[in-house]
This record gives sequence, C-alpha cells and structure tokens, in this order.
Amino acid sequence: MVIIIQCRDRVGLVAAITSVLAKADFNIVSMREYVDLEENKFFARIVVDDIGYLQNIEMAITKVLPPDAVVKVNPLPEKKIVVLVTKEYHCLSDILTRNHFKTLGANVQCVIGNHPDLKNITELFSIPFHLVSHENKSKENFEAELTNIILPYKPDYLILAKFMRILSPEFITSFKLKIINIHHSFLPAFIGAYPYRQALKRGVKIIGATAHFVTNDLDEGPIITQKVIPVNHSFTLIDLIKAGRENETATLAKAMQLVFEDRVFVFNNKTVVFE
Amino acid sequence: MVIIIQCRDRVGLVAAITSVLAKADFNIVSMREYVDLEENKFFARIVVDDIGYLQNIEMAITKVLPPDAVVKVNPLPEKKIVVLVTKEYHCLSDILTRNHFKTLGANVQCVIGNHPDLKNITELFSIPFHLVSHENKSKENFEAELTNIILPYKPDYLILAKFMRILSPEFITSFKLKIINIHHSFLPAFIGAYPYRQALKRGVKIIGATAHFVTNDLDEGPIITQKVIPVNHSFTLIDLIKAGRENETATLAKAMQLVFEDRVFVFNNKTVVFE
Amino acid sequence: MVIIIQCRDRVGLVAAITSVLAKADFNIVSMREYVDLEENKFFARIVVDDIGYLQNIEMAITKVLPPDAVVKVNPLPEKKIVVLVTKEYHCLSDILTRNHFKTLGANVQCVIGNHPDLKNITELFSIPFHLVSHENKSKENFEAELTNIILPYKPDYLILAKFMRILSPEFITSFKLKIINIHHSFLPAFIGAYPYRQALKRGVKIIGATAHFVTNDLDEGPIITQKVIPVNHSFTLIDLIKAGRENETATLAKAMQLVFEDRVFVFNNKTVVFE
Amino acid sequence: MVIIIQCRDRVGLVAAITSVLAKADFNIVSMREYVDLEENKFFARIVVDDIGYLQNIEMAITKVLPPDAVVKVNPLPEKKIVVLVTKEYHCLSDILTRNHFKTLGANVQCVIGNHPDLKNITELFSIPFHLVSHENKSKENFEAELTNIILPYKPDYLILAKFMRILSPEFITSFKLKIINIHHSFLPAFIGAYPYRQALKRGVKIIGATAHFVTNDLDEGPIITQKVIPVNHSFTLIDLIKAGRENETATLAKAMQLVFEDRVFVFNNKTVVFE
Repeated sequence: MVIIIQCRDRVGLVAAITSVLAKADFNIVSMREYVDLEENKFFARIVVDDIGYLQNIEMAITKVLPPDAVVKVNPLPEKKIVVLVTKEYHCLSDILTRNHFKTLGANVQCVIGNHPDLKNITELFSIPFHLVSHENKSKENFEAELTNIILPYKPDYLILAKFMRILSPEFITSFKLKIINIHHSFLPAFIGAYPYRQALKRGVKIIGATAHFVTNDLDEGPIITQKVIPVNHSFTLIDLIKAGRENETATLAKAMQLVFEDRVFVFNNKTVVFE
Repeated sequence: MVIIIQCRDRVGLVAAITSVLAKADFNIVSMREYVDLEENKFFARIVVDDIGYLQNIEMAITKVLPPDAVVKVNPLPEKKIVVLVTKEYHCLSDILTRNHFKTLGANVQCVIGNHPDLKNITELFSIPFHLVSHENKSKENFEAELTNIILPYKPDYLILAKFMRILSPEFITSFKLKIINIHHSFLPAFIGAYPYRQALKRGVKIIGATAHFVTNDLDEGPIITQKVIPVNHSFTLIDLIKAGRENETATLAKAMQLVFEDRVFVFNNKTVVFE
Repeated sequence: MVIIIQCRDRVGLVAAITSVLAKADFNIVSMREYVDLEENKFFARIVVDDIGYLQNIEMAITKVLPPDAVVKVNPLPEKKIVVLVTKEYHCLSDILTRNHFKTLGANVQCVIGNHPDLKNITELFSIPFHLVSHENKSKENFEAELTNIILPYKPDYLILAKFMRILSPEFITSFKLKIINIHHSFLPAFIGAYPYRQALKRGVKIIGATAHFVTNDLDEGPIITQKVIPVNHSFTLIDLIKAGRENETATLAKAMQLVFEDRVFVFNNKTVVFE
Repeated sequence: MVIIIQCRDRVGLVAAITSVLAKADFNIVSMREYVDLEENKFFARIVVDDIGYLQNIEMAITKVLPPDAVVKVNPLPEKKIVVLVTKEYHCLSDILTRNHFKTLGANVQCVIGNHPDLKNITELFSIPFHLVSHENKSKENFEAELTNIILPYKPDYLILAKFMRILSPEFITSFKLKIINIHHSFLPAFIGAYPYRQALKRGVKIIGATAHFVTNDLDEGPIITQKVIPVNHSFTLIDLIKAGRENETATLAKAMQLVFEDRVFVFNNKTVVFE
C-alpha cells in the first residue's frame, strides 16, 4: 500500500504520521521524505505492507497533519487515462502495447486524435478512437468537443502523446496538473517548433526529450523526467527525428511510470520525484 | 547533521526515532528509510537542521531501538583516509587534487606504495609517501609493515587506488568494511587479471568499473557503485586501458563521495545506497 | 546506395574501389573503412549517391579485390525476417509495431512461438503466427519443424526475441551469422539462466543487455551492441526483470537497426560496427 | 601517421588520395570520410602505417585535390597549449595532472590567470603561471597583455579552463578556431551567466556541459562535445555546481582528446568529429 502526503512542514510530522501507522500495526517497507526548506513544504511517500488494519488511515493521518495537507492512500489502484494524439505513432503504440499487456500501470480509456491517422492502430488494440478535427472551428469549440468526450471517462490523467495543438489556459486549468506532455527537446533548449531543425543547424552532439506537466506557460510546466541520446555530424534531419522519437518514447514511458506509481509531487513549477 | 541507523526491523521504528528528534526540536530536512524484508533489516539516513538541542541524541535514539542497533550521529565531520597504490597514477592524482582543494570529503593522511613510482606526485601535494616493497618478504611481513604504518593514522577508510597486491583475509578482517577498492571491470564480468585483454578478445561494446568494499572473496565484496563507457571495434588494447582508466577514476570518486557522506550501508554482501 | 566490402587487406584497396566508383561517376557521400591489423582484414561501408551509372558495380568492384572478397551492393533493399518467441511480449511487440509502421528496416514474414502466448498480439498486426511446441519431441524434430516453416520465407535473419530454447549446432550452422539473439544480461557477466536472480544476489548497481549473433558457443557469439540501465538496492526481483525488459527491447531494436542498415561486419567472433 | 584533409567535394577524391598513398606503399589502417552534401564539403582522416616512403606526401596529396584543400600530415606530433583560468580549479588540475604524466596529448606551455588563486597548483607542477589582472585597465589593454604572453609560446590552442572574461572579437579573430572553451551548460539551454541558478529554478532533471570553439558569438561557437549528468529535486545550488564541475572536467578532457588527435573538423559553425 502506498501513502503519499504533501503539506506545510513542521517539526514532528514524520513521527506523527508513523505513530498512526505503528498503532495500526502497519510495517513501513520503504519511505521517502523530503522537505523543501525554501518553501517549507513537506513531501512523503510511504510504502507499507498490507497486514495492518485500519478502516480509514487516510483520515487518521490527515488528523495529525497541518490543515493544508493532501493525503492519498493507495491513490487509485490503477489510474485511468485518455491519450491525445495527432499523427505520430511512436508514443501511442508504446502506450497501447503496455496497456494491452497490463504493464502500463494505467488503463487507457480512449484515444482522441485531431487527425485520423492513428485510428487504425488504436482499434487494433480494441480501444475506442475519437476523431476530433480542429479544422474549421474555434479553439473554444474544439476544446469543448474534447472535453465532452473526455469527461465521461473520468480520467486521472490526459497524456499528450505527440498532440500537436496548443491548449488554452481554460482547458489546462480544468485539468490542472493532470495533463502530461512529451516535449521533443531537452527543455529549456529549443523551445517551440522545429527543434530538430534548430538542433541540426546548431550542430549539437546530444539531443534530449522532456516529459512535463502542462501549465499555462507553453513548454514551461514542471519537468517530470528528461533523457538524452548522442548524435553526430552524420545525422540528417530525418536521422535526428528518428533518434528523437526513440528518445521521446522512452522518456514518456518513464514519466508515466513515475506518475502512475505516485512518485511525483508538484509544487512551484518544480517536481519532487522519489525514484 | 546526519544521523545514520542500521538495525533489526520492527513496527514503529521510524515513529520512535522521529519522536526523539521532534521532542528535541530537530526538524527533518530529508530522510531516507529502507527495510530489507528478506533479512528484516532497517536502514535510515536522516538529515536534520542544526537548531535542535540535545546533548546526546545518539544515546537517546539508541534507547528506543532494538539491541543490535548501530546509530551514528554526524559520524566524523571529516573522514581520515590512507591511500594504497602501485604504479598507476590516475586515481591517486584525482584523490590528491580533491584533497588539496578540500572537496574530497576526507583528509588524506598518507599514501603507501609498493613501488616508488607515485612518490613524486604525492609529495608535490605535501602528503607523506611511504614505500613498502612487497619484494623479498612474506605476505605476512609485508602486511605487518603496512599495518604499522597505517595504524597510527587511525584512518576511517583505506582506499585501494589501483593497489595491485592481493590482501590476506587477516589483513582484511582487521579493517573490516573499511577497505574500498576500484576494480578494473564491470563485475562480475572479467574477474581477475587482464580484464581489458579479455574484453578486447570478447569484442565488448561497453566496459565498466566497479567500486566495492573488500572482503575475503577476491573482487566479490559489496558493490558501492558501477559505471560504464562505450567502446568499439577500433579500440586497441591501449585505447581500452585508457578509456578504462577514465572510467575507474570517475567510479572511485563517486564511491568515495557516497561513502564519505554516509550514504552507504552494508549487509549480507550487498549495499543500500541512499543516493 | 550502400556498398559493403569485406576481404583480406592489401595496399591500394581503397584506391582500387573508389577508382571504380569515380569512373562510373558515383559520388561518395560517406565512407567508413577499417583494417584489423592482427587479422589483416579489410572492412568498408560506402554510401554513394544514386546518380552514377553502372550495370554491375558489384562485379566491377569484385574484380579489383582479392579473391576472398565479399561485396554487396545495396544488399537487399529491405531485409526479410522471421521472429522466434516464447512467452515474453516486450521485444516482439516493439518489432511488430515498427514493422506495422514500416520503420523497422525489415519485413516480418512470420512469428514462430514454442508457446501460444503471443499468437494474439501477432495476429492483431496481421502477421502469420506458427505454433511449434517443443514438447514431446526430440530437439531434432523440433528444429526440423522450425526449419520447414522458416525456409519458404527465405529470411535474411532470424530474430530470437526472447526465444527460450537452446538451438543445436546443426540448426545454427544452417543459418550461419543470420541468427540474432537478445541476451538478458551484460555479457560476459551472468551467463546462463536466472541472470536477474544472480544480479539481485550480487547487489549490482547496473544491469545490461547484449544483442549478439548466435554461434555454437551458447551466449558467446559476436556482440552487436550492449546497453545498460542503473538499478539500486530497492529493486525487487520483479523490478529488476521489468527494468531489464525495457533495456532488452531497446538493445535489440538498436542491434536490428545496425544490422539492417548493413553497418555490422563479423570476423573472428567479433564485430566491426560502423555506427 | 595521421593525414587530415578538408576541401570542396568532387567525384574521385578518395581514389585520388588513396592512389597517392598506394603508390608510396602506405597501408591504410583506418579511414573516416564524410561529405556534407549541402555545403559540398569533403572531410577525411586517414591513419596509415609508417612503413611507406615519400618525402613530401602532403604536397603529393595536395596536388590531386581542389585548390582550396587543406592537407595536414601528422599535424604536429604533440600540440602546444596555453591554459587560461580564473578561480575554479577543477578543469585546470585535471589538465596539469594529465600533462604531468604525459597523457594529455599536448604540452602545457603556461597557465594565465586573471586572479592569483591557481598560481599555487600550477607551480606545484612546475608550469609557469602568469597573473594578468583585468582590473583597472581597458579590455584592449588586458588582451594586449594576454597576447604578449601567449605569442612567444606559439601555442596550437588556447584552452579556456573556466576563464570568466569575455574576449573581444579582435582577440578571438587573432586565434581563429584555436580557442576551446568549456561552457557550464548544455548549450543552447541556459546561455549566459548563472546557469545553475536557472537550472535549479527550472527544476531540470539533467544538467550538461558543452565544449566548443570560441567564435564571436558568445557561447555560440562550433560544438566539439557535450555530456550530461542526472540531477534531482534534492540537489541544492551547491550540489548542482559540484555535479556540474565533475561534468565540465570530463567534457573538456574529452574535447581536448578529440582535438589533439585531429579528429575534429570545423565548417559553418558546426563540427565533423571522427570519434
């Protein structure tokens, strides 16, 4: 069982929390705790064995914590996700495969594409695909359609698996810290479009990818994880894009694993990741 | 202030420990805890701010723990080390440089060589160099000489920085879990001599290095850290050795940092490393 | 157009080859050449633009080379492969996905499993799946069945994507240097079965995977590529296996790319890889 | 013997070059060739054994190449370098150590500091240290002093080993493509000052370092090599800087090796690196 806690820091928090657990006979298998001293914020992830007893640990723990505390006990045995895509298949097919073999740590509820290109692969895996074109409609209407499809699935997270539309602040706010994006670059380098073209021109020797939560600042949300791969002068634009895609797939997969295992806390546009 | 604890596990340990700290008004800045369930062993590393009060926290904590508990509070502000070498300079000069600029996290007391080759570089940095040749004497006598030189320095650790003599079980036992070695290979591959020759013949694409505590099983002690670097078909034996040395230097440096910051626990021929 | 050449070395080879190309007006876009001096072996990979003319460059080049020369010009625009599997899905589904989107650099002709577990995923992608159980039959008969299925497909390579049966020298010889295996370890460490169990016991900090051609010495064939990932004390056996699978998938994918792009030469149980 | 060639591309270049070598009985041990098709530029690095005969290969090769060709044969058996520093010791002491043990591939002629902090370590290694303060003088005068000290040493390269002054276009032009800098960031991210502070604020999970030739655009010269290391939320500013220094030292060391072994070609603000 996993218990995650985020609150204002004060002396005695760990003692208070673990006393609750000890009284209920839970044994702590593994615990990570971190305090951000500048912000006076306390973060903890506690794995306990399942042989303790307590009808409502969540409430018992919350009672000993500051009023702002967010406590989640085993927060959703398996997350529900909706995946948004455009045309590129690499991240989506990795997600669909893991979902198929039940190793994703989440259940894919549906895939939404603003192009029809990935309908076929999605339906191969018997997952519903919704086509929501962005053409000939306002962003407001486009996002209203997205929302109408998404909401009934009650997803814990939206995964932007190479979804190439910029979402409005309103949309983002309505799914606050629930949207995960894979950015085709090692942020903060090459923000924006055509990163591989920029990388080629600059002659870089490494390219990266960044998985992050989406906030209103485009490409500026809290970073979950980053990976790089080496490249060299002989890489054409196509080679760079190909290498970049391998890296994007691996980076998004890692980020999803961290988030779905409740290892990621967000505060102040940064993350605490108990890897 | 760093507090490290290792003992038999039981329910309530973290609560007990942190209650002691809370009562004395220490705030926990960062805490890592791990329980090895198979062995029922508890490990913790707690960083607290220094504004609490308590004359003897070590004893206060020990009192609430099982009888086998080992508790160290801020265990030695700076470690003392003795470095043993043979002829290769790369690890030693890295150690001497960091020591010179006080970024090693330990104080080099002296260097002992079984060859005179590294006397010069050692003395450049105003560190005593002791030549203890292994020639024309029994291992027993050789090690007795080593011990006579080492003991007065009261070192916390002996660093084998490419020391090419095999130490006897008696010697190792007398410095139990205090000897750190850098092995010129990615253990357990290529155990023993001529690892680069073996690697060349095998056509490997990666070579590694392993830093580990020395126990009686040659090259089989608890691993502290491992690193690898890529190699390819064009590497000659000399190129492999050169690349290997870069990697050995970095691997030993990392291992020493982890050990000197009290991030490494040993049990059962394995380590718990709170990186 | 890619030209690959392997032969005994002698003075003037590059001049002879490139003169043939120059006379036919081919421009060399990129060239890698390597001579193994110990074995006196010459290897070259030449990429030329396609605007030259020459009906039979292969013969023209061969004529200026030593009699043992193997010259392949644009050797098969796309390779044909047969994939052998047992129960684990991770490598196979990566291959099927890339094949589906035509980014594998090869065409999957069929999948053969000695268990039925992966029939479903294979057929999702409209690829034939052949079940060839190894039970209740001699290895000879088992392999005869395999061969009967494989041969009509005329594959360039057999990919052992977690195929857990040991193949006989006879079978291997009949597909000499055409069988690629992914080994669940950083060879030569942990040869044989249960590598993750061994790795756990040994407390390693890195685990690896090795893609190699299969020869008669089990797990001892020429290494194509190797990758590693970091692990730590908190990894259970299941975590190690999970991390290992990510690594195996990436390692096999990389090896296939290198082989299918004709970047890998084999001699003397080693490879020359022009990455 | 190493031969490096850079010129306009045309059909038949490799044939022409290698014919010259073949006639003189040189055997090619290893050859790397690359053509940048957009710029129509030809680059080659040829390693030949030393048993051929030819009084002036350089001229013989130049005669068969386009008029713009730059040909260097075994270009300087060992490079001469001058190292410029400010206060940070990590890159300099690595250079001094390698120089001391003759594994740098270059000879350090002297060290110039605009602060006296590194005089001591430099002189420990019996290398001349020149203090050239930038205070109370114009940039013009400061650089004139630098130049007066540098020129008599006739260095092949100037190494900016954490030299924290911005050099004028005039100074840079007078040492065109001879100045190598280590930038404390993964360019193009975090250009300019305080990269670690920026990195901390942004919550990055990886930090990098870039070694590059210095041109007039600050931090924008041709990249030689880049390396990264993982960091996490628990890193303070000091931890980031410490980790960054390890990475800077390794990155600059790698760049120097590549340049000193004549593996790096520059064109168009990019490099071709035959690693």
